[in-house]
Amino acid sequence: MKNAVLAAIGDELLCGARTERNASFMAGKFHAKGWNVQRIEVISDEEDEIISLLSRWAGRTDLLIISGGLGPTHDDKTRSAIARYLGCGLKADDEAYDRVLARVKDDQRRYDYTKKCRDPQAMIPELAETVFNPAGFALGIKFEKDGTKVIALPGVPFEYEAMTRQELPEIFAVDEKRTASVIILDTPEMTIAGKIPEVISNNSLHVSILPAFPQVELIFKGEPEIVAWAEGLTRSRFDGLVLPEGSRSIADAVLIEARAKGVKVACAESCTGGLVGGALTEIAGSSDVFNGSAVTYSNEAKQKILGVRAETLRNHGAVSSECACEMAEGARRIYGADFAVSITGIAGPDGGTEAKPVGTVWFGISGRKGTRSVMRRLPGNRGEVRTRAVRFALSELWKELHSI
Amino acid sequence: MKNAVLAAIGDELLCGARTERNASFMAGKFHAKGWNVQRIEVISDEEDEIISLLSRWAGRTDLLIISGGLGPTHDDKTRSAIARYLGCGLKADDEAYDRVLARVKDDQRRYDYTKKCRDPQAMIPELAETVFNPAGFALGIKFEKDGTKVIALPGVPFEYEAMTRQELPEIFAVDEKRTASVIILDTPEMTIAGKIPEVISNNSLHVSILPAFPQVELIFKGEPEIVAWAEGLTRSRFDGLVLPEGSRSIADAVLIEARAKGVKVACAESCTGGLVGGALTEIAGSSDVFNGSAVTYSNEAKQKILGVRAETLRNHGAVSSECACEMAEGARRIYGADFAVSITGIAGPDGGTEAKPVGTVWFGISGRKGTRSVMRRLPGNRGEVRTRAVRFALSELWKELHSI
Repeated sequence: MKNAVLAAIGDELLCGARTERNASFMAGKFHAKGWNVQRIEVISDEEDEIISLLSRWAGRTDLLIISGGLGPTHDDKTRSAIARYLGCGLKADDEAYDRVLARVKDDQRRYDYTKKCRDPQAMIPELAETVFNPAGFALGIKFEKDGTKVIALPGVPFEYEAMTRQELPEIFAVDEKRTASVIILDTPEMTIAGKIPEVISNNSLHVSILPAFPQVELIFKGEPEIVAWAEGLTRSRFDGLVLPEGSRSIADAVLIEARAKGVKVACAESCTGGLVGGALTEIAGSSDVFNGSAVTYSNEAKQKILGVRAETLRNHGAVSSECACEMAEGARRIYGADFAVSITGIAGPDGGTEAKPVGTVWFGISGRKGTRSVMRRLPGNRGEVRTRAVRFALSELWKELHSI
Repeated sequence: MKNAVLAAIGDELLCGARTERNASFMAGKFHAKGWNVQRIEVISDEEDEIISLLSRWAGRTDLLIISGGLGPTHDDKTRSAIARYLGCGLKADDEAYDRVLARVKDDQRRYDYTKKCRDPQAMIPELAETVFNPAGFALGIKFEKDGTKVIALPGVPFEYEAMTRQELPEIFAVDEKRTASVIILDTPEMTIAGKIPEVISNNSLHVSILPAFPQVELIFKGEPEIVAWAEGLTRSRFDGLVLPEGSRSIADAVLIEARAKGVKVACAESCTGGLVGGALTEIAGSSDVFNGSAVTYSNEAKQKILGVRAETLRNHGAVSSECACEMAEGARRIYGADFAVSITGIAGPDGGTEAKPVGTVWFGISGRKGTRSVMRRLPGNRGEVRTRAVRFALSELWKELHSI
């Protein structure tokens, strides 16, 4: 098993202005290949910190990938830190930078700007090599030290992805599954563990249990045969509540199920403000089964666009079983869909009452068998309530589609 | 200045199944108080790794906060690791756990389940103290070693937040600003740096420059007086393109501006699938100025719901200036809004043509001065294109509202 360390550089990460995502993207790729990610580190953009990172891991891991600190401004210090660490100067790689420049030759403003950034964006430590940037402008850097390969890349996520793909083709190649994920709905994690004791206690398998209401995801890691055994056994024990193989999320499962059944879906959203539509359309190709979502935040919009009755709103309020059902039926009608799910609730922090505290969310599901509703009291702050409501709405929609 | 280290435990983080967010949340709080976050570390959930983390930082930082590894299943090893590190056994804190249990006494199923998890969720190392959990069920742990205070908390974000608030009230108290953020639209980072040289080169100020199309965020850190000077000077140099003080994002600025002008806004979304609505409603209180968003993914929905003409779709396609304008006008009309923004584009990976490659996005802005459109070719993968399109749509809407 090979080892890797993933590091990100940037004060914006240590002061909470940004969340690091490149490392978790890359960690997933390494694990699928049986590599071990020893650690993820986020360090400040001081030259000394970068040099200390390099000293800390050189000779102690097979591959160290660093992201960040290669932009054109004063706070970008990865180049100079690597040069100091290697004890050499910096030199422009004009050939590589000219290839980068050529990509924007038709856009005069961008061309001039990028040209002006040659120093520092083309500068490479003399004892290191260039990593070409196929997606952006800043060149990357690579070198080897004490048996550790070091690759320094820009922090911009799609540049980072393009450059890791280019430099580590073996990590991105598809092969046997050393990890598998099984997503189970509506079952607490302890209950799940109790139903598959032989999987949980198997010493040659690593099992992570990740609850994210209303789902629990099990991630199995190990040799391909044992991963396949654990996945198959687990799937057989949670029939009807386990998302089909190949669906990476509940949204994905909804699209796959709708496609398989030849039906169209739509939604009507109040407190989630469009996030259910956002989750479905995150997946390429969703347009063939997803017609759209009506975000009706005001009562007027609920009436005018979805046809919710004024009487319903007056007698039961917008957060009610009746309103949720009429919203789902309205969405089915206006989008010409076979199935629709609706969400209306109180995400907080204000707007709660004794009878309907913050976190009260009604869901309507309308389809071929008619319309039903279900209520959940969701815990957490505004963001948490919304995230949980999105996943719960999609899981109710999936169960409805799965049962036809 | 006090130092802190933030660590997260969990194989799901090192294998890329989850992205760590607690550390960046907490890092923001520490920085606002002038604390220095020395490092963020993500380690695996092996006992030995947790013990090595404790040994690595004890005596080398003022405060170490650990998140994760306190759930009820076999992969949760923080409790036993701390007990081994301190050389003691584990003992249930029944008094604290009974208080936790009392919160779910009305929900029999949840009560029984939580009660069954007493071991391990109530277990505390004998030489450590309990951190009460006001939001969830697993108790936290705290102790001091070699001058370093260690606090171990569950990884569930809203439990982590509630427990840090409870344990570190001084960090959450509001006081003088040691950091400030200025968000500038439509200006490349080098151009910005060139317009405020005295701010960039000031040695007692730390400046981070964070581009996120179409905005660049500048974050200033330092003593309150110098932060105030840098913020004031920067704001004065980018009049009309700088978001007003107090707006944390473009979506926030749109809501503040709409509220100040007494107008209502709406949107019509195709390739962003509801994410503009999602971004606006992420902010509590958005309902007073945001009426809703029509997510019209199919051409039929664009015609039926927004009134886009069949002729427009036939002659120009859905990704066109004409369609974007009709979508924006439709959204204004059906939601009874004063201003609306629309998005229609090709997010990829499929669907691009030579004339309209992946990344081509048209935006329509309809308001009191009429309707206009603007096109951008956005770089990146599907997710990047969508994220950029959301921010760009909101920034165009903000500029429109700002100018009236």
